[in-house]
Amino acid sequence: MNSFGKRFRFTSFGESHGPGIGVVIDGCPAGLKLDFEHIQQELDRRRPGQSSITTQRKESDEFEVLSGLFDQVTTGAPIAFWVKNEDTRPQDYDTTALQFRPSHADFTYHVKFGIRDHRGGGRSSARETLARVIAGAVAKQFLHSVHGIDIFAWVQSIGTVEWKGSKIKDVFETEACQMVRCPDPRRAEMMVAAIETARDAGDSLGGVIACRLSGVPAGWGEPIYGKLESELAHAMMGINAVKGFEVGSGFEGTKLQGSEHNDRFYSDSDGTIRTQTNMSGGIQGGISNGEDILFRVAFKPTSTIQQKQQTVDVEGNVVELEMKGRHDPCVVPRAVPIVEAMSAVVLADAYLNSLGRRV
Amino acid sequence: MNSFGKRFRFTSFGESHGPGIGVVIDGCPAGLKLDFEHIQQELDRRRPGQSSITTQRKESDEFEVLSGLFDQVTTGAPIAFWVKNEDTRPQDYDTTALQFRPSHADFTYHVKFGIRDHRGGGRSSARETLARVIAGAVAKQFLHSVHGIDIFAWVQSIGTVEWKGSKIKDVFETEACQMVRCPDPRRAEMMVAAIETARDAGDSLGGVIACRLSGVPAGWGEPIYGKLESELAHAMMGINAVKGFEVGSGFEGTKLQGSEHNDRFYSDSDGTIRTQTNMSGGIQGGISNGEDILFRVAFKPTSTIQQKQQTVDVEGNVVELEMKGRHDPCVVPRAVPIVEAMSAVVLADAYLNSLGRRV
Amino acid sequence: MNSFGKRFRFTSFGESHGPGIGVVIDGCPAGLKLDFEHIQQELDRRRPGQSSITTQRKESDEFEVLSGLFDQVTTGAPIAFWVKNEDTRPQDYDTTALQFRPSHADFTYHVKFGIRDHRGGGRSSARETLARVIAGAVAKQFLHSVHGIDIFAWVQSIGTVEWKGSKIKDVFETEACQMVRCPDPRRAEMMVAAIETARDAGDSLGGVIACRLSGVPAGWGEPIYGKLESELAHAMMGINAVKGFEVGSGFEGTKLQGSEHNDRFYSDSDGTIRTQTNMSGGIQGGISNGEDILFRVAFKPTSTIQQKQQTVDVEGNVVELEMKGRHDPCVVPRAVPIVEAMSAVVLADAYLNSLGRRV
Amino acid sequence: MNSFGKRFRFTSFGESHGPGIGVVIDGCPAGLKLDFEHIQQELDRRRPGQSSITTQRKESDEFEVLSGLFDQVTTGAPIAFWVKNEDTRPQDYDTTALQFRPSHADFTYHVKFGIRDHRGGGRSSARETLARVIAGAVAKQFLHSVHGIDIFAWVQSIGTVEWKGSKIKDVFETEACQMVRCPDPRRAEMMVAAIETARDAGDSLGGVIACRLSGVPAGWGEPIYGKLESELAHAMMGINAVKGFEVGSGFEGTKLQGSEHNDRFYSDSDGTIRTQTNMSGGIQGGISNGEDILFRVAFKPTSTIQQKQQTVDVEGNVVELEMKGRHDPCVVPRAVPIVEAMSAVVLADAYLNSLGRRV
Repeated sequence: MNSFGKRFRFTSFGESHGPGIGVVIDGCPAGLKLDFEHIQQELDRRRPGQSSITTQRKESDEFEVLSGLFDQVTTGAPIAFWVKNEDTRPQDYDTTALQFRPSHADFTYHVKFGIRDHRGGGRSSARETLARVIAGAVAKQFLHSVHGIDIFAWVQSIGTVEWKGSKIKDVFETEACQMVRCPDPRRAEMMVAAIETARDAGDSLGGVIACRLSGVPAGWGEPIYGKLESELAHAMMGINAVKGFEVGSGFEGTKLQGSEHNDRFYSDSDGTIRTQTNMSGGIQGGISNGEDILFRVAFKPTSTIQQKQQTVDVEGNVVELEMKGRHDPCVVPRAVPIVEAMSAVVLADAYLNSLGRRV
Repeated sequence: MNSFGKRFRFTSFGESHGPGIGVVIDGCPAGLKLDFEHIQQELDRRRPGQSSITTQRKESDEFEVLSGLFDQVTTGAPIAFWVKNEDTRPQDYDTTALQFRPSHADFTYHVKFGIRDHRGGGRSSARETLARVIAGAVAKQFLHSVHGIDIFAWVQSIGTVEWKGSKIKDVFETEACQMVRCPDPRRAEMMVAAIETARDAGDSLGGVIACRLSGVPAGWGEPIYGKLESELAHAMMGINAVKGFEVGSGFEGTKLQGSEHNDRFYSDSDGTIRTQTNMSGGIQGGISNGEDILFRVAFKPTSTIQQKQQTVDVEGNVVELEMKGRHDPCVVPRAVPIVEAMSAVVLADAYLNSLGRRV
Repeated sequence: MNSFGKRFRFTSFGESHGPGIGVVIDGCPAGLKLDFEHIQQELDRRRPGQSSITTQRKESDEFEVLSGLFDQVTTGAPIAFWVKNEDTRPQDYDTTALQFRPSHADFTYHVKFGIRDHRGGGRSSARETLARVIAGAVAKQFLHSVHGIDIFAWVQSIGTVEWKGSKIKDVFETEACQMVRCPDPRRAEMMVAAIETARDAGDSLGGVIACRLSGVPAGWGEPIYGKLESELAHAMMGINAVKGFEVGSGFEGTKLQGSEHNDRFYSDSDGTIRTQTNMSGGIQGGISNGEDILFRVAFKPTSTIQQKQQTVDVEGNVVELEMKGRHDPCVVPRAVPIVEAMSAVVLADAYLNSLGRRV
Repeated sequence: MNSFGKRFRFTSFGESHGPGIGVVIDGCPAGLKLDFEHIQQELDRRRPGQSSITTQRKESDEFEVLSGLFDQVTTGAPIAFWVKNEDTRPQDYDTTALQFRPSHADFTYHVKFGIRDHRGGGRSSARETLARVIAGAVAKQFLHSVHGIDIFAWVQSIGTVEWKGSKIKDVFETEACQMVRCPDPRRAEMMVAAIETARDAGDSLGGVIACRLSGVPAGWGEPIYGKLESELAHAMMGINAVKGFEVGSGFEGTKLQGSEHNDRFYSDSDGTIRTQTNMSGGIQGGISNGEDILFRVAFKPTSTIQQKQQTVDVEGNVVELEMKGRHDPCVVPRAVPIVEAMSAVVLADAYLNSLGRRV
């Protein structure tokens, strides 16, 4: 339950207000020299407190390596990383010990396990996602060593502010673009403003992240029950606050006719078989076809808000809940590196699973 | 790759134009008296040739039991079912041996495996889904024996014809409703007409299926990487032609604010903790909360169409493809029992996985 | 529970007195042309009724292919085989419906599942092992296609008649050698005689099988919990009637000192690193070292005997049991191809798992 | 590869001369109050330096809890433990960077991974087994909470000094008994003397450990490929230096006749169905039958010895190896808690897997 992947597999552990968060990566091939700076950069992209529109919890999120490397090179042994929790305020959560926050995991963990670490959501906190970011950083480095794969995610919408441009460069040019991870400067400003408004009203926003995986060769993904889109969906739906996933033409594509939707094949100047359109989103029959893999992920508005809300306590009495704590008014910008990280793990796993499929 | 589920697990085998399709169910608890009539009814709902808007391939789809039962009762041994292929016409597929049908699995199987059974799509054919329907029928019967769980899926849209009614009865009253599995008689008529139009033009349509799982108790689903929505998404994205999945408020919900989206808790007259709204779609933190589980699945328009299409052959030469064969102009109505079946398997597995989570 | 292997994985189904026995092989690489005659030969080595010292049940054990091949070549799809049961006599087992045969699985299946197919042991019957022999035959053919691996098992002892010769040729020269699969003609005669004596007394015998896997390259097997000896032991202990497993020096080796037991390295004339002795049995640290892999498997005497035995019925009353049926007075000779088959599956799986361990 | 178990599952990480050894336990049911003192006692039984016949490496082996507990109670979240390495002397292993120790994992890791942490064996070191001891201690506490299961292992032989007494009390009365974990005072003295002799000669000894699992109810273990003896064998063969496993009558039992070997059933005064003998070792058909589970594990003599040995270096040149380092002249006594620990994990897993096998 706390592991992801088959052959490139990681196991995460730790809680929001415990000693820290750890991750063990098993199955990463030996002989890979890890770039620690890159791992830290990935963590920094997820880190709280990085701008005025994120939670103000102060965490340096610096990692230690506990095992698996020799002179910074992978040995085939499990690689364990550890990140300490520094700025915990368990007292902010005294009320949630006995009250269930609406649309949180409080109630369901209580029912399932009969006990829960209520401090900051405990195990269900999004703080756990830094384990995914570390695993994803290692996966990215591994993918880079075998194929020139480029993974790039960006924000398409925050609340009702939407940008659906398709010619995406891999850079965020303005400060607003960097804050919300939207490539379009004008929309990025509007998104920042929308988040600030929500924040100041003690409310929250959701949004949509798009992701493009370039350079994936044809042939990755395992039919019938290990299709690449199944693995991606599994990974994305497991990210906190995610409510939807679509690949290629997705829900909109259901309105087209087959003759409009089919991706015609052609041979490019190198003789490579390509498709003229990419409604498939780079996957056909569960297997990559060599085109860009394109998918979108829907995030609901953050469930923790500063406004008072009605709820019940563990004995079922109706109570009024008022959260203190420090929260993200919108998790979507910080989720961009998480979407990328989980994509990288899915691809690293798909690559290893694709070996040995032909004599 | 050809198995699904952890503790309630099935393995499918067989091809579109081979001897038949089989399924082995492992982990179904002992002592369950199987209702064969129900299994056959479920198969009949998926069967080709059932109406004028489906493929005219004639298959009786009658199953044999090869193992696992004693006096029709499960013994804890693997239960194997076998359904013969009867109406195969391999010659209809002579061209696809050397040409790649656009937006099909032909090309990717060719690249991945270096060989493929091209007759009717071989292993990638939707004919394989009858294995899922059988496994789902057994799962439904098992779920019924432990909890009064009701699984009901219906068509929400075909192409641009959409019906989003929410008060769903579990019956399809008119003939058109039964043909397209949409509960609204007027929209159903329009959907039938749309499919007939596409069929007559040698074209195809997609659509959206909604599904409701009622009676699931709170506490099923495994955080962090085995969340109930992850498992459902994995299952649904593995169905042929699926391009999207969303649970609860889904993509639309990203436009709301947290104060609008949060599901307030209350205690009902029995003292049961419930939520006033169900934006969560019955799942919080990856675990069922006792409300109806609601999700939607997007199907692209069928890729096999009668119109001529440009494509390439295995040597990369551009050719014009003209399919004979017998095809569904829209797979969505026939996919309704498949969506239900995979839901049932996910729930049966989730139930078995939920055992032993507390001392 | 009814599947074995991770990447080269098979699932078996069927009971002793049901319609037949089947097996689905998933993960066998595409492009392998199967030799059907070889598969049948392997089945014939396991077949009942092949000599006067085996059960006289008459089964042709001819297989059908249900899926996964195209022109007899693997396509990457699951390969299903089916063998019909022909000579069933369920009436021979009327008593065992209500009585527990000593040292059989009757009682434990009854306790675990609350129901059992008592006819000939149902699922727990050794008839299930023909699924393993088929999977093993395919694995052998796959291994042959990638490496020149030779798998050879033989009988070392039957009851107290023991032969521990070490220079093993891969042939059984005399009829007695062929009957008991012991390479030594004199011991083979004694073994045949011992089995005949036991048979005539309505009693049974056990014995030991040795197995040698030659040509396995260094580097197969996964530390720490997927060691090659762990996988082999898992496989062998799962064969009916097996009570012990040892690799290399085994139990006897515990009496040596380290200076006697250590396998000194040297470089042979090709520059290959070899060991002077092979106490390790070809595996060090869970990974093959390039030497012959050598192990031994202990089989208890068959628990079904013709003599009257005291036992209890399902209500706990002491009763006297008298078995009719047709039984092997000694299963060891017929287990030789099963030991080989499971070895082949373990190696095929180990090979596929060994891919991608280095960048 | 670095995880063990399906539903009660642990993942270990860490190397002999890295920062430390860690373990993550996933699937331990919520609501279990852990007894830390018991965990430490189990670690102390495995700890180096505990007597004159073990390695003199000085480690306190005190554990920290990194995650998964709330007020010392399990929450259903993964439980991570961490033990620092304190007394490392990497310089003792300078030679092994370039030379392969005979009968060690040096050569095979080198071939498989192309790189290895040579310091003290790195990942292949028996120091990793403290992860197993911690997981086993938690498993024991869990088993105690659900059933009164008692796990007891002891030394049956060291080299050629053997004690096969069967009426085992769970205590080691004399100092020698405690040192070697043999219940018989006279044999224990002889074993201590044998180990001292080997140590003083720069040599090493092996031996046999027996283990008894009492109180396991009938019905645990999963046919056909998850038999309880398969899981135990898998676990035991994965312990460093193990070369053999047998259950019940084992290899010796192969010499008996069926009429002698069969365990007759009877009903005891409570009406419980029991067996008069226990040749089966408490398991029939892969499932526990309610009798004591009895098995034996063979350990080869420690491969690290102080005597000079011929070997080759990484370039294949023959060299003479002389190990400094601090080593166990016999690992058998310290392996007793490891055998128990792995047994406990197998049983905890078997219990959780046994849930939900009947409707």
